[in-house]
Amino acid sequence: MLVHAGNSRGAMRGERLCPAEVKRGLLDGNPWQADPSLANLSGVADALAGNGPAHRIIIDATASGEVADYHAHWLEQGIHVVTACKLGSGTTLERWRAINDAVARGNARYGDSATVGAGLPLLRNIRDLQAGGDTIHSIAGVLSGSLAWLFNHYDGQQPFSQLVLQAKDAGYTEPDPREDLSGDDVRRKILILARAAGVPLASDEVAVDSLLELAADGASADAGLEALDAPMAERFEAASAAGAQLGFIARLQDGRARVGLERLDATHPLAGGAGTDNRVAIWSDRYCDQPLVIQGPGAGAGVTAAGLLDDALRIARSTPD
Amino acid sequence: MLVHAGNSRGAMRGERLCPAEVKRGLLDGNPWQADPSLANLSGVADALAGNGPAHRIIIDATASGEVADYHAHWLEQGIHVVTACKLGSGTTLERWRAINDAVARGNARYGDSATVGAGLPLLRNIRDLQAGGDTIHSIAGVLSGSLAWLFNHYDGQQPFSQLVLQAKDAGYTEPDPREDLSGDDVRRKILILARAAGVPLASDEVAVDSLLELAADGASADAGLEALDAPMAERFEAASAAGAQLGFIARLQDGRARVGLERLDATHPLAGGAGTDNRVAIWSDRYCDQPLVIQGPGAGAGVTAAGLLDDALRIARSTPD
Repeated sequence: MLVHAGNSRGAMRGERLCPAEVKRGLLDGNPWQADPSLANLSGVADALAGNGPAHRIIIDATASGEVADYHAHWLEQGIHVVTACKLGSGTTLERWRAINDAVARGNARYGDSATVGAGLPLLRNIRDLQAGGDTIHSIAGVLSGSLAWLFNHYDGQQPFSQLVLQAKDAGYTEPDPREDLSGDDVRRKILILARAAGVPLASDEVAVDSLLELAADGASADAGLEALDAPMAERFEAASAAGAQLGFIARLQDGRARVGLERLDATHPLAGGAGTDNRVAIWSDRYCDQPLVIQGPGAGAGVTAAGLLDDALRIARSTPD
Repeated sequence: MLVHAGNSRGAMRGERLCPAEVKRGLLDGNPWQADPSLANLSGVADALAGNGPAHRIIIDATASGEVADYHAHWLEQGIHVVTACKLGSGTTLERWRAINDAVARGNARYGDSATVGAGLPLLRNIRDLQAGGDTIHSIAGVLSGSLAWLFNHYDGQQPFSQLVLQAKDAGYTEPDPREDLSGDDVRRKILILARAAGVPLASDEVAVDSLLELAADGASADAGLEALDAPMAERFEAASAAGAQLGFIARLQDGRARVGLERLDATHPLAGGAGTDNRVAIWSDRYCDQPLVIQGPGAGAGVTAAGLLDDALRIARSTPD
């Protein structure tokens, strides 16, 4: 049962909250229901104390580093954490280790399916392979729904910056699309996958070729986006001439990770997909010639919510009452 | 520990068998080690009786209907069954129901990862989706490693029958390649996937357009293969002219299943892959616009053995000692 729900503006608490009421109270900002004093993060765990439910689970659907900083703390207290927020295990090694150590002590589980690929079964399959004795050698993937959409639609006919604004209008990018183009989001996702595959990289060990750097004249704001048009058209022409397509690819190989624009032959395992599809190829002892490939929508409220629900149900079913 | 190992010619039994010796004894046909009287299937369970190991697991890596007929019987006795043999849950509804009912009674688990896609995580992901509350609407896939190889290599330049013989020589097909071309193997696999997805189809409810029927003049044996060349070239030309490729596709849709040759546009979720790659697209409530796609090598001793090992380890880890 739902005993506490909150966002950055307030929170509601009760013995048995009704999701529809929570939605009205929190999202529609109805002030008589949302109590700002409860939004204090240090008190969230209190809602689960006492004669509460057997499975104490906190679900983090924020993009907040402040909340992610509590993940290890909650796990230490035996509270399961299910999260779509990449900032727990996709940023500093220190924060990831704290989460990992807390999970290793066995009091609580960490549900992180929704942190990469919006609930696509990526982390689960990487862990399943290893549980069966396989060793992961490398991972390569299209890990950003917004960048996937851009390169699935960019045909060199219209300016790249126009397409970015179109993606922004359609809600596929962050409010400032430069956050997507910077590659920072993809850096966090390849870190999460690498760490799950047994390569504990630090955040600054990922080499990121930001798309923003293509606009090398350093123009700011909207001018910056237009500065991308010429270099992107040039890269598109060169790739097309070679029968290839462009993709923004994250790679883990030989213990090193990098993120950036690549040319993909038509037969490359990462060529293909549509819309905001994420696509990840995994090479291992077992999948050494041809990789295991998992593909599907990697962004969206529905699939992200489903990923969170999967993890919560899995935890509830597999841990003792 | 390994207490019994057998093939159709004999078997070995001991308190703690050494795999290397078993291999020499059974595969190299060393008669002083292999005892034909032990190969009696009705006695296999005896090897696991008494003060044996806590987890009693029988691994079936045969292609034998006789062995598959014992699956339900072993499960009823509380012995876990891990199988690469499709004849247990991919043939009659009666046999599948007996296995399903035995598993439902909860005494033992059935590890069937290796029955479709040689251990690719297909069945597991289909079941995981449903466990999270998702409903599968349709499944479409390239489910035969040998047919995938044939259509990944057929370019209309050489006669199709030549390519079939090449695949046979490379060991990608059954000893008689017509068994692959008949579509019977693919029929069994789509039955297994459909039943796992909650659609308990009978075997004769799958419409199979056998490639052999393309050679409609009814010529026998090798003449039959050559009779394929003209109709296949014709279909290849027509597909190429439309910018499409050919694939041998199994589909489950609206509760019905069919298997046969299809044209796939370059952007189709099933276009792509290489070698003997299997590729399966799953549409569900959650994956409604773009499907979840899983791709990877779907044939080979290594990946099949790994799939069997995965299931055995998962059972050993998740069931009480």
